[in-house]
Amino acid sequence: MKVIFLGSGNLATRLSLEMHRKGMTIGQVYSYTPENARQLAGRLGCLWTTDLEAIETDADLYVFSLKDTVLANVITRIRPNDGLWVHTAGSMPMDIFSGHTANYGVLYPMQTFSKMREVDFSVIPFFIEANTSESASKLQQLAEKLSGNVRFLSSDKRKNLHLAAVFACNFTNHIYALAVKLLEQQDIPADVLLPLIDETVAKIHTMPPRVAQTGPAIRYDENVINKHLAMLGDSDMRSIYRLISQSIHKEARHE
Amino acid sequence: MKVIFLGSGNLATRLSLEMHRKGMTIGQVYSYTPENARQLAGRLGCLWTTDLEAIETDADLYVFSLKDTVLANVITRIRPNDGLWVHTAGSMPMDIFSGHTANYGVLYPMQTFSKMREVDFSVIPFFIEANTSESASKLQQLAEKLSGNVRFLSSDKRKNLHLAAVFACNFTNHIYALAVKLLEQQDIPADVLLPLIDETVAKIHTMPPRVAQTGPAIRYDENVINKHLAMLGDSDMRSIYRLISQSIHKEARHE
Repeated sequence: MKVIFLGSGNLATRLSLEMHRKGMTIGQVYSYTPENARQLAGRLGCLWTTDLEAIETDADLYVFSLKDTVLANVITRIRPNDGLWVHTAGSMPMDIFSGHTANYGVLYPMQTFSKMREVDFSVIPFFIEANTSESASKLQQLAEKLSGNVRFLSSDKRKNLHLAAVFACNFTNHIYALAVKLLEQQDIPADVLLPLIDETVAKIHTMPPRVAQTGPAIRYDENVINKHLAMLGDSDMRSIYRLISQSIHKEARHE
Repeated sequence: MKVIFLGSGNLATRLSLEMHRKGMTIGQVYSYTPENARQLAGRLGCLWTTDLEAIETDADLYVFSLKDTVLANVITRIRPNDGLWVHTAGSMPMDIFSGHTANYGVLYPMQTFSKMREVDFSVIPFFIEANTSESASKLQQLAEKLSGNVRFLSSDKRKNLHLAAVFACNFTNHIYALAVKLLEQQDIPADVLLPLIDETVAKIHTMPPRVAQTGPAIRYDENVINKHLAMLGDSDMRSIYRLISQSIHKEARHE
């Protein structure tokens, strides 16, 4: 199986390296930025290009792993071919390929990727869909080589899943960044937070987060909440504190 | 060493059980609510009371593990004695004991506790302080029997640490609850989020959260952000989404 990657970002990097490791042939990497294309192709030991016209037409699989804003445009500029075209975006519909090629689908690995950090693909949930049952079966076989956790999901449900993932990953990570900032202002080493963060996550492996909730906001302890608001110099952090505390309390009242 | 616990909540429960496990004698448990007092005393095999007048005066250590709103009041109602009095609250100053007893301090284990969930105390960071060097040394010895991670911290720094802990634990847990709610609305099983949540936390063990940040908000991809805002039926969730996305983007621009 010959695979061509369009994109060289965090997801493209980790996914192409994993496919390579699993014995699939990565034939070519395209990126708008030559330095990025060269770098990823170097790690894969394959060809690279910055020219959409130069993308080879004999591959079995084309993986579009591009920013949502450029995906539609790039799709219109690929020369026709018989390969299966898939994108890896959580929030883009499969139909974006419609009219541009015969066989297409989506291969969405729900994970946070960084170029330099290895991840265990075997546990990553992959969400797939395809426009024909033949493509679906091909894509399923491919995804199951990468992960033990593969399921079909419609574009509509996938975009909701992606929204949930933004909360569960991007937002919580930013909240960690804000907590670290508070500690840095006090010259307290950031790593004292790790046991608390680990246990917060370990808990939700055994009970729903709703049940695991602790802290001053559940009982809306205005004494503590107001002291905290007064301590927050940054007005954005104050708004975030107020809004999330109100939301915690609202959910608690629904119990 | 004889210890008396005032309080029977999540923290009091886990801390008293751990002290008991480590061979310390829990002499008595006080709680305002008889059922809670009886339950915890049952697990500890000790006496219980709901009467502050009935608290024994011969203990070495009195652990005040009460809501911030009642702590000050309870302190004034305990009969004088020679024991060391400590509270376990993140955001209350040590001086709340001043004038009420000779030897006092703070024993703050920074962790999220639930009554029925065991936690590994050996890795929990304990933050302590005391009003005399003798009490400080006594408290340090005690804390080091419970955890390998004990340090002295002033009341002022501790309240900032507690604020950071509210972000890192209570707020992130609530964000998980919101993500689960989104999935439930789509009949997608909540546990598909766990590998993503685990990896988000694993990443910040190896790099600062600022560096680990991914997702649409960094590049402020208005296309995705506006689609997400439109999908959120709940106006509080929409406000949280908007505010955190703006905050992520602001931090990213500072890089």
